[in-house]
Amino acid sequence: MMLGKYLDNVRATIPLVHNITNYVTVNDVANVILACGASPIMADDALEVAEITSICGGLNINIGTLNERTIDSMLLAGQVANELGHVVLLDPVGAGASKLRTSTAERLVEAIKFDVVRGNISEIKTLVIGSGTTKGVDANEADTVTEDNLESMIGFAKNFAKDKKCIVAITGAIDLVADANKCYVIRNGRAEMSKITGTGCQLSGMITAFLVASPNEKLEATAAAIATMGIAGEIAFDHMQEGDGNATYRNRIIDAIYNMTSSTLEMRAKYEVR
Amino acid sequence: MMLGKYLDNVRATIPLVHNITNYVTVNDVANVILACGASPIMADDALEVAEITSICGGLNINIGTLNERTIDSMLLAGQVANELGHVVLLDPVGAGASKLRTSTAERLVEAIKFDVVRGNISEIKTLVIGSGTTKGVDANEADTVTEDNLESMIGFAKNFAKDKKCIVAITGAIDLVADANKCYVIRNGRAEMSKITGTGCQLSGMITAFLVASPNEKLEATAAAIATMGIAGEIAFDHMQEGDGNATYRNRIIDAIYNMTSSTLEMRAKYEVR
Amino acid sequence: MMLGKYLDNVRATIPLVHNITNYVTVNDVANVILACGASPIMADDALEVAEITSICGGLNINIGTLNERTIDSMLLAGQVANELGHVVLLDPVGAGASKLRTSTAERLVEAIKFDVVRGNISEIKTLVIGSGTTKGVDANEADTVTEDNLESMIGFAKNFAKDKKCIVAITGAIDLVADANKCYVIRNGRAEMSKITGTGCQLSGMITAFLVASPNEKLEATAAAIATMGIAGEIAFDHMQEGDGNATYRNRIIDAIYNMTSSTLEMRAKYEVR
Repeated sequence: MMLGKYLDNVRATIPLVHNITNYVTVNDVANVILACGASPIMADDALEVAEITSICGGLNINIGTLNERTIDSMLLAGQVANELGHVVLLDPVGAGASKLRTSTAERLVEAIKFDVVRGNISEIKTLVIGSGTTKGVDANEADTVTEDNLESMIGFAKNFAKDKKCIVAITGAIDLVADANKCYVIRNGRAEMSKITGTGCQLSGMITAFLVASPNEKLEATAAAIATMGIAGEIAFDHMQEGDGNATYRNRIIDAIYNMTSSTLEMRAKYEVR
Repeated sequence: MMLGKYLDNVRATIPLVHNITNYVTVNDVANVILACGASPIMADDALEVAEITSICGGLNINIGTLNERTIDSMLLAGQVANELGHVVLLDPVGAGASKLRTSTAERLVEAIKFDVVRGNISEIKTLVIGSGTTKGVDANEADTVTEDNLESMIGFAKNFAKDKKCIVAITGAIDLVADANKCYVIRNGRAEMSKITGTGCQLSGMITAFLVASPNEKLEATAAAIATMGIAGEIAFDHMQEGDGNATYRNRIIDAIYNMTSSTLEMRAKYEVR
Repeated sequence: MMLGKYLDNVRATIPLVHNITNYVTVNDVANVILACGASPIMADDALEVAEITSICGGLNINIGTLNERTIDSMLLAGQVANELGHVVLLDPVGAGASKLRTSTAERLVEAIKFDVVRGNISEIKTLVIGSGTTKGVDANEADTVTEDNLESMIGFAKNFAKDKKCIVAITGAIDLVADANKCYVIRNGRAEMSKITGTGCQLSGMITAFLVASPNEKLEATAAAIATMGIAGEIAFDHMQEGDGNATYRNRIIDAIYNMTSSTLEMRAKYEVR
């Protein structure tokens, strides 16, 4: 199985992605969606989200900096996307950190059929047990996927996917992308990416673009987007010069996505299927 | 006619620009306004927009990520700006993509006397025919201004300006800036600028600053701002190095505006008046 | 007294900082908080701010782009932070520019016990006299702290601190950090930093992180954060190359904070205690 074609599919079809997302990382999300070859539109008012979703190919719902007005818009847009058969992704940012985020993530999962749910391990666990060990918007270290607990975490991911009838992407030092039967274990990326705000949000936007471009191979497309982000983090890190820090690293990662080719993606992707 | 002095006027007078704009590109808008020598202030609540507008020289209204709360603020601020004789610009982001955006743009144009309306061709056409062929927030390719349809597009722009009693700026591969009698056709810029989110929003902020600085030559000031942005896109592109992508390009364009001189603007501006 | 340890304390304890802040500069605030070694979380809805504040070590309240919804959240979060004994900082962006901002800043100061209030001189003066000479979000030149009026400004700062029972940080070409008895006069930084949107907002986020990490030496921790920002501005400026402008400078300052060491901070900090 080759991942490069999923990037090529994005470049060839220029998917339009509707994002209802937080105001912290929204600009980077838009630029990453452009970098991978797709086109972003941001709209969060209930009076227009149905229409905006209908002209797009996919919907990316991110609950960072949510409020009552935007929660209504998320529910509405998600239902319209479902009716139209568009792909929908949930990024449950900070689920577990507040009852509002936890209950909103739960409401969304109940009301909307998501193709992919992407979060860190703490956020995903919160969706299973209803309360979290989330430390703010970052994963609790005690929960991290490691080589030691990998087998059981793969089982957890597959069970989650089976139970919620969706693909789950648990991202961290090791990334897992699972449906009920199959799990991609991806080992690209750099720890320094966690020193940039919003790499997770950016990834969710990019996954949505990949899903729109390859609707019949959603598991593989999700894995390809995650590998693309991880490899971009590696390439960007290789180009870091003395004095560079997280601001330059942020820009260099987006640049690396912009310049990513399917052959680089093929060559550098480190993954196994379990 | 020389365009350089309009940039010098901004640098000499440091206009204060009130922006009611979207949360996607707002940071870049602020930095571009600073880069050209002006000073930005963002405020969108109905309880303060009248006062904020009154202490500024100009008002930039951008309808990306609008909602009911901010629409009221736009109407209020625009009316105050009109009463005070301040310049007001409309950027109808995504007009044609949803009824909310189309009708809001129409309401604004009816309620407020705009000095300049700046958009892509799809957005501007939407303001004429009441419904659009906008593909998200980008122009529909079928609508693009080209050398082949230039004559008729110039006529369209002049008619729009005459009908709406404002200057219209239609930006794309070829930029048109027209009042009822005269049209600047500007051929600066690079196609790669469309791979950065918000270059249009940034330009609208910068045009507003130029208008405040040269209130008696609004057509020329608008053309100068557009040429400045296009030339900055060219200079930034010339400085791109291997591995650079749209994130670095974004920064380099703002940098190039920061370093733009009136003589560079004079030398590199490519335009004709029709 | 050595300032370096306050930076080391941040790096050692990774404080979680809750930010209720404006949508213009929020992304840079998050990246600066990460750069100095802390962890940011942004949340502004009344339904979750109490909980989010309770899991954090400190709260940074910034009134740029405020609205009625977020004002309620600021009041609520501030009171919870006070009850829990968490540090709370106020950044009264634009106080004096509108009645809404002035009265909101006053309401906050009355309802919440702030550990630190940080603003430019115009904003701080507004909190004393109830109306301002603020020019938008920048300080009025007539108000600036200079070598000539330094003695009286130090007195003003100490009186403010005594009267409001908090530390006050007045930042500009010369920075003052005072409690009722003691005033740090800091002379780091570059004038060019004012050509970047949000360096003040970024600083407020970073000060909050420093306060959480050194709760028993708040005056010194605040001074250390301010020196860190100023030195980063100097280092970044030293690395500027031909063609660089305010966008690159923005990134380089954040990078310099990311790479700041306690020994660099010690060596380059220029301050006296009065």
